[in-house]
Amino acid sequence: MADFAIMGFGTVGSGVAEVLRMNADSIEKKLGEPLKLKYILDVRDLSATPYAGVAVKDFSVLENDPDLDVVVEAIGGARVALDFTRRALMAGKHVVTSNKELVASHGRELLSLAREKNVNYLFEASVGGGIPVLRPLFQCLAGNRIEEVTGILNGTTNYILTRMVRGGIPFDEALKEAQARGYAEQNPAADVEGLDAGRKICILSDLAWGKEVLPERISTRGISGLDLQDVAIASQAGYQVKLLGRALRLPGGKQAAYVAPHLVPEACPLAGVDGVFNAIMIRGNAVGDVMFYGRGAGDLPTASAVMGDVMDALQHREKRRELGWSESAELTELDDLVMPWYLRGGRETPADCRVLSGGAALTGPMTAQEAKALAEKLGAAALLPVLQ
Amino acid sequence: MADFAIMGFGTVGSGVAEVLRMNADSIEKKLGEPLKLKYILDVRDLSATPYAGVAVKDFSVLENDPDLDVVVEAIGGARVALDFTRRALMAGKHVVTSNKELVASHGRELLSLAREKNVNYLFEASVGGGIPVLRPLFQCLAGNRIEEVTGILNGTTNYILTRMVRGGIPFDEALKEAQARGYAEQNPAADVEGLDAGRKICILSDLAWGKEVLPERISTRGISGLDLQDVAIASQAGYQVKLLGRALRLPGGKQAAYVAPHLVPEACPLAGVDGVFNAIMIRGNAVGDVMFYGRGAGDLPTASAVMGDVMDALQHREKRRELGWSESAELTELDDLVMPWYLRGGRETPADCRVLSGGAALTGPMTAQEAKALAEKLGAAALLPVLQ
Repeated sequence: MADFAIMGFGTVGSGVAEVLRMNADSIEKKLGEPLKLKYILDVRDLSATPYAGVAVKDFSVLENDPDLDVVVEAIGGARVALDFTRRALMAGKHVVTSNKELVASHGRELLSLAREKNVNYLFEASVGGGIPVLRPLFQCLAGNRIEEVTGILNGTTNYILTRMVRGGIPFDEALKEAQARGYAEQNPAADVEGLDAGRKICILSDLAWGKEVLPERISTRGISGLDLQDVAIASQAGYQVKLLGRALRLPGGKQAAYVAPHLVPEACPLAGVDGVFNAIMIRGNAVGDVMFYGRGAGDLPTASAVMGDVMDALQHREKRRELGWSESAELTELDDLVMPWYLRGGRETPADCRVLSGGAALTGPMTAQEAKALAEKLGAAALLPVLQ
Repeated sequence: MADFAIMGFGTVGSGVAEVLRMNADSIEKKLGEPLKLKYILDVRDLSATPYAGVAVKDFSVLENDPDLDVVVEAIGGARVALDFTRRALMAGKHVVTSNKELVASHGRELLSLAREKNVNYLFEASVGGGIPVLRPLFQCLAGNRIEEVTGILNGTTNYILTRMVRGGIPFDEALKEAQARGYAEQNPAADVEGLDAGRKICILSDLAWGKEVLPERISTRGISGLDLQDVAIASQAGYQVKLLGRALRLPGGKQAAYVAPHLVPEACPLAGVDGVFNAIMIRGNAVGDVMFYGRGAGDLPTASAVMGDVMDALQHREKRRELGWSESAELTELDDLVMPWYLRGGRETPADCRVLSGGAALTGPMTAQEAKALAEKLGAAALLPVLQ
């Protein structure tokens, strides 16, 4: 018998309980022992729910139960969640989470603590919801030197962009639609300004190269300033506008990480990823490009990843998974990155460009600094990077 | 220091040696110890290669070396490879392979032997080349009940189909082109008749439900009989013809597995997978649909997966990975599967069908048996299943 607890009974927490209810038999068969939900910790009153019998309000009950093996942290944020995660690890519990904010900002400390206490701290659900991507990255692709990770990491913004491209409706209207459908929160800033995607690309970068990249160190540009006409011109020219998180290994060993809307050529599999779906492309020096695709959010998909981690932690009880990152990464200035650029509304078409409709053009590869200077010189109204 | 050996120095074997040469530093860092290529076993003379110093011709050298940890089996086939794999496992070595024929036909016995000897038998490279798919299936998605696995599992046939669709050239010509480019073998039967895809869908099915499905038990239909006009009509109607391997869990707990060319609607991500790329879609009852995409063959991509398994085996030296399948699966008759069908060339258009160009039509969902009866009654020249 393995015992676990859920902290925070919101979307993810209740999804985890539901997945156990749905699949208890197959989970027991795979684990070789029954998995028991022993506690649900939440400030709310759960006495009217089927979980009344396991509801607790005091964290120390979990902390002091020597038979409790795994704690699922589904509280969110980086305050209470940080405190309880620290204490759970200190108490020798394995901890599993979907909390990207906590992992991106405090993962280094928490993984180091987990190593000290010889327990697992696992967080597959923090990136890409239910899509298996972190474990494939650090395990299946371990024989590669990772060159690049590029992903559509936020379903809300991808839904809005898909509506702008396919429905021809402007950003504000698409956002309202996303809110009405429950895909965007009432305060959508973390999604539409690229902060959520930024946390996820940091976690991917941490794992790809074993060096810490904190969210506050990377440039994030969201989609709120995106003009519908650029989306339409790009689409006519064979590109889809996508909000991408990118992490790159550059010649000389430096790294870069950022979030920005890009023009993605239609031949790239990322271009076809629509609606609330996420996809992450990983380039390794042996495997080439591999892509992982699926639902990046939602109660059951996210709970699927959490449950996979709970089972993995239990299968690695004696010998924890080696996982972690150490010193800070040496990041290059974004201004030095070389790629082609989309420009619109300049006074004249720059030389050596592919001319598009609506006074827009695609430049050849140049640094972000050069592209900005060119856009300024021409008085361009729009400047977007192009994925190669 | 961890020691490993490569048996068979062809495409995959030499790729594994090359990946170690390229990435020795990062592999050592991740493993926490250097990885040493101690032996290469091959019948050929390697004295003129950089690997002369580690070349051996006698398997018993590997078998009797108590310091050898892992053996990579890259011999292929199911004769010598079976014998050496059995003996390596018996000698307490971990074994890693890309040999789908061996895993599909003898995996049950070999995994049972590995369990007995408390060693790992891993085969991520046997399906999808470098694409991480087996480990995500049995580990990351372990919390799900798997409902379906559907994949483009053979790059050769996908290249030929892509040339037929996009280039408008007939099968024979596309095959010759694939052979000229080295994508198809001189005897292409195993690829074009669907046997290779069949072995892979058996392995996926074995892992998804833990019950053995042997290749000889499933129906495999390849692409050699495919008419260019059906590919063209389908394309015009918004479908791509793809050779799919499918494994399904049916109501009541029975299973089905088969390989056949299908019409895939363009909205399905599998439709956009072109050329030599592979993609595998997995449906779980919690996660929904997830897809894995990348190069399904080639020396370095396949070696990437092998190397990931070698490292995983070393990280699970004391406590082997629980992996295996037991009794035979209860398979349903394919004739009972219900789906829509593509028909061409009948004497009349059947009722309740979507009429396509060229005398073709799409039926509503019906069993394969009903579709065959209908095709026969109408004297149809072509009958293909449609992915829903």
